[in-house]
Amino acid sequence: MALVGASGDASKNTARPMRFLRKHGYAGHIVPINASRSEVLGERAWRSLAEAPAGIDHAFIMTPGESVERALEECGACGVTVATIFSDGFADAGAEGAVRQARLIARAKTLGVRVLGPNSMGLVDVPGRLALTVNAVFEIDALPAGTTSFVSQSGTMLGTVLSRGAARGLGFAKLISVGNEADLGIAELVELLVEDPGTRVILLFLETIRDGAHLAAAARKAHAAGKPVVAYKLGRSQLGAALARSHTGALAGEDAALDAYFRDCGIVRVDMLETLIEIAPLLAGRTPPNLPRAARVAVVTTTGGGAASVVDRLGMFGIETVAPNSKSPIVDLTMTATAEQYTAALDDLLASPRCDGVLAVVGSSAQFHPQLAVEPIVRSKKNAKPLAVFLTPHAERSLALLAGRGIAAFRTPEACADALAAYFAWRSPRQTPQQAPVALPRAVPDIFASLGITVAQSQLAHAPDFTHTVPYPVAAKIHAPEVAHKTETGGVILGIRDRGEFEREVRRLGHAQVLVQKMESGLAEAIVGYRDDPLVGPVVLVGAGGILAEVYRDYALRIAPVSVEEAEEMIAEVKALAVIRGFRGLPRGDVRALAQTVAALSRLALVPGRPVAEAECNPVIVKPSGAVAVDGLVVMKE
Amino acid sequence: MALVGASGDASKNTARPMRFLRKHGYAGHIVPINASRSEVLGERAWRSLAEAPAGIDHAFIMTPGESVERALEECGACGVTVATIFSDGFADAGAEGAVRQARLIARAKTLGVRVLGPNSMGLVDVPGRLALTVNAVFEIDALPAGTTSFVSQSGTMLGTVLSRGAARGLGFAKLISVGNEADLGIAELVELLVEDPGTRVILLFLETIRDGAHLAAAARKAHAAGKPVVAYKLGRSQLGAALARSHTGALAGEDAALDAYFRDCGIVRVDMLETLIEIAPLLAGRTPPNLPRAARVAVVTTTGGGAASVVDRLGMFGIETVAPNSKSPIVDLTMTATAEQYTAALDDLLASPRCDGVLAVVGSSAQFHPQLAVEPIVRSKKNAKPLAVFLTPHAERSLALLAGRGIAAFRTPEACADALAAYFAWRSPRQTPQQAPVALPRAVPDIFASLGITVAQSQLAHAPDFTHTVPYPVAAKIHAPEVAHKTETGGVILGIRDRGEFEREVRRLGHAQVLVQKMESGLAEAIVGYRDDPLVGPVVLVGAGGILAEVYRDYALRIAPVSVEEAEEMIAEVKALAVIRGFRGLPRGDVRALAQTVAALSRLALVPGRPVAEAECNPVIVKPSGAVAVDGLVVMKE
Repeated sequence: MALVGASGDASKNTARPMRFLRKHGYAGHIVPINASRSEVLGERAWRSLAEAPAGIDHAFIMTPGESVERALEECGACGVTVATIFSDGFADAGAEGAVRQARLIARAKTLGVRVLGPNSMGLVDVPGRLALTVNAVFEIDALPAGTTSFVSQSGTMLGTVLSRGAARGLGFAKLISVGNEADLGIAELVELLVEDPGTRVILLFLETIRDGAHLAAAARKAHAAGKPVVAYKLGRSQLGAALARSHTGALAGEDAALDAYFRDCGIVRVDMLETLIEIAPLLAGRTPPNLPRAARVAVVTTTGGGAASVVDRLGMFGIETVAPNSKSPIVDLTMTATAEQYTAALDDLLASPRCDGVLAVVGSSAQFHPQLAVEPIVRSKKNAKPLAVFLTPHAERSLALLAGRGIAAFRTPEACADALAAYFAWRSPRQTPQQAPVALPRAVPDIFASLGITVAQSQLAHAPDFTHTVPYPVAAKIHAPEVAHKTETGGVILGIRDRGEFEREVRRLGHAQVLVQKMESGLAEAIVGYRDDPLVGPVVLVGAGGILAEVYRDYALRIAPVSVEEAEEMIAEVKALAVIRGFRGLPRGDVRALAQTVAALSRLALVPGRPVAEAECNPVIVKPSGAVAVDGLVVMKE
Repeated sequence: MALVGASGDASKNTARPMRFLRKHGYAGHIVPINASRSEVLGERAWRSLAEAPAGIDHAFIMTPGESVERALEECGACGVTVATIFSDGFADAGAEGAVRQARLIARAKTLGVRVLGPNSMGLVDVPGRLALTVNAVFEIDALPAGTTSFVSQSGTMLGTVLSRGAARGLGFAKLISVGNEADLGIAELVELLVEDPGTRVILLFLETIRDGAHLAAAARKAHAAGKPVVAYKLGRSQLGAALARSHTGALAGEDAALDAYFRDCGIVRVDMLETLIEIAPLLAGRTPPNLPRAARVAVVTTTGGGAASVVDRLGMFGIETVAPNSKSPIVDLTMTATAEQYTAALDDLLASPRCDGVLAVVGSSAQFHPQLAVEPIVRSKKNAKPLAVFLTPHAERSLALLAGRGIAAFRTPEACADALAAYFAWRSPRQTPQQAPVALPRAVPDIFASLGITVAQSQLAHAPDFTHTVPYPVAAKIHAPEVAHKTETGGVILGIRDRGEFEREVRRLGHAQVLVQKMESGLAEAIVGYRDDPLVGPVVLVGAGGILAEVYRDYALRIAPVSVEEAEEMIAEVKALAVIRGFRGLPRGDVRALAQTVAALSRLALVPGRPVAEAECNPVIVKPSGAVAVDGLVVMKE
């Protein structure tokens, strides 16, 4: 292990890796490289990799500026096949840095050197006693070993996750800061961890997704290997900003697309940072529950208020609290219950077919009587059903005791509920059968019909006489592609009843050609949209018509393409479309026909080269029988 | 201090109070009372209060069943003026228990004994070294003293809040478990804490509200004394269940009414349990910001990922992140910034007029270099503007260091964002001028008009000829009060154009009398509702018309009565009513007229005796000029 740029000043960041490697008992050779010293912190150092002894496996490069390139060249020359680069100033520093990074990685490929970073805080192999990092948290006395591995786009989070885990007895296998992901990225690291026998659960801290298709494939491999993958992803609130724009592309919002993406490839998404740290024991060794209905949780507690703080939250996620054997949804054992009674109650619930998971809440005794408070839980029978524990007081020893037995324990009611909700929402990766490529017609107006979407009968009518054969009543629209929202600009005349009215209106529009379209009416309006998302690829959405999808974010979104059955599931998620699902005895609309429209539009994802950036049928009129697209928009990629 | 039922068995709950009082250095006399022992845990005990020495101030009653009543009688006889009752089996145990409780309290009043409980876990005065409680957490070695007091409806939470606070250096003045609140309730205790010179901030853990008017008055006193009151209230998710019903009463949902109530009386409401513990330093000594617009927070950090985890969350609350002096919304100082640079950056932000608060985020160095990481923050200048700190690693010493300086520090990004959002949403208690009582007409149909609400012209028409003088077009409705949702049962015919059509439709309805009403059309429909909420009293709401208010929970709610100006603020909060506020160039509706309708209906709160349980105008048609109630419902109390 070479430390390129290892500082002789113990107070510097770049002095830390050597200290941490020694402190945590790295068994291999450590080779400090320092251009201006022959000794670093009391150990023999070398001026360059070229002068250093042979047989180096891995170089950790911490030198600034141009010297990174020099160090990489030396790696190539000396047969060092992996370089982790801490130095920044690459893609993290704007366009010029990005060019420098591209050059660096191209050269690394030529040299046969794999690169982690640049801008990586390093990597840690806890069982291997390798703490190759500048992260200050690794001053910690003992690294907690476990079977959870962590890959992070934020270097700080290595220390955050390790230290918080350590405080409650949760250990780790590998922790990796990927930095700019110029070569080795999240996806490839997930694949490596799938093959790592020391890793049972893989945690991800994500600021963005740089290779969605590769990560999706890696997540599927993890699922096949029985290793749950969990993601905490920043950027939820960007949805708000994106929604300020009005077309489908913005409507689909990055975050909703990411939700669909994670679900699609079987990744568990958590909402809170601490859930990421605490959820591993809840998932380890388990497979996605793939629940077809709202989840049901049974609760056993010694504190009503403590249990309610979790149950209240579960309710907000739509998770039901059920009582297998009593009238109250909570089995309250009070402070006087014996350990045997507690264990028996837990075992009953874990075995009951009436719940999908069990929540155990422990009150004040958890802090100073950990053995007493936690023993009944530890003694409960392991079950395929998940068991989550919330301890109301500050109780690190009890948390550690539970963690030591592989039982999921949570420090806050919110993270506890978040973890259960994430577990219950967990789906196996979607099976997408190979589908034949779809051919796209040359003319944009024909695209919808060619996909199999029913579009309203229409015809272009030209001055001076504007003859057409569309039956009345009709709508007349200005035919000018640059007018994006015609209803706002007065460019659409609806409900024209006869030829006389038509001629008056067309004259008033004052355009040389108008699109004449048969008026359609039905039970509800919907919006159906497609977008090739920059992070996760093609997505399809269905939402309420009019301003509802936008104002209330009332839509369902999936990775495209979707089947008609999947589209029906999507429609069931749209609140406003309750009006066609038999809400309050209203007449039912043709949900199947709308689903066919959604599935048809989603097939744009199968066009070779994916030339369509976004497409939208808005509105689609849903009738008692059939669904008709009345207006549409297609934006090709540039 | 008498401990009635103090156990001689150290492992029992009832042995704890004596141990805790001794352990934490209670300076007064402790008088154990045990019917069967003359010695308890090595101390002299008495068989009854009557036999015990005179001069007892306070009795803590832990005996079961009927003996509680006996102990209370003895309190009265011996001049003990306060009894805290731990024993349960009263209102907590159903109807019979409630009767027993009422009897007990009536007797206590006669005897001149004030009661805390029954079912109270006790109370703690930290500076006074009084730990009078059975809560197991008080085994803790030292009670952390501070100026935050806590009143809880859950006894467990005494230990939860104390232990979690202690772990991060947050101290407390008084902690009180109110149990069943049979005599001394939350409100009266808040009033006592307002007068307590040792208390600066008052925290509440609420499962319900038993005396809303009294608590509102107490909160106003706290505001006047400059003591912030913070509430964590269970029951958020019950809104979902309540919304399943369809009339205004349910729509107003308990939780939305509570939000309005807390806002109205100047109580800060937090969403997460840990926020309740951590928020005190953010509020102590501050007054409500009463922000008229979205809040702006500036951020200084040593970790991009750590800062983003809070900023992302702030964005979800609609809080903007602003950069006073740079292009990025975050001032990222990286790991190499000096302490002086950090302090200077913080002081700049705290002084900047462009932000309303400052967030400081500290990364991995916070764990093992607390002095180094936190010192720059400690040195920043105290400012009227709030400063919130989030530490990414497990870093209890840094948290304690900040707490010791009165700086608000948070363990999780979510609680940090929750606290800032709660602070920015904080309003001074609403000033409600004395208003004259409102007289209600005898006949329910006249109620709306008598309040000053414009109602659609209507007239009852009777068989056989159904004559009326309402101008066409009209609507005809079956006139039968038992039909709650007429549109669902086909009992309303809309858009009748002339007499001929009217006669046909009326025959088809087959009723002896129909209500004929002028058809109204406008730019939008709204729902205006009033409800006398069982917890918080009269509330008024305005929402989108049709199914929108219900399906999307799209409504604004306030404590009634409201002024026209307040009603206009409410209308601005309803998303769907954007269509009458000039959304996308659509014609504006008469917002003022709708606001007058809301204010008028809210005046039902001023009717002496408040005989109306709920009332609803639905829909109210909003026109370019004017607003007309087309249908209404009034439910009187039983």
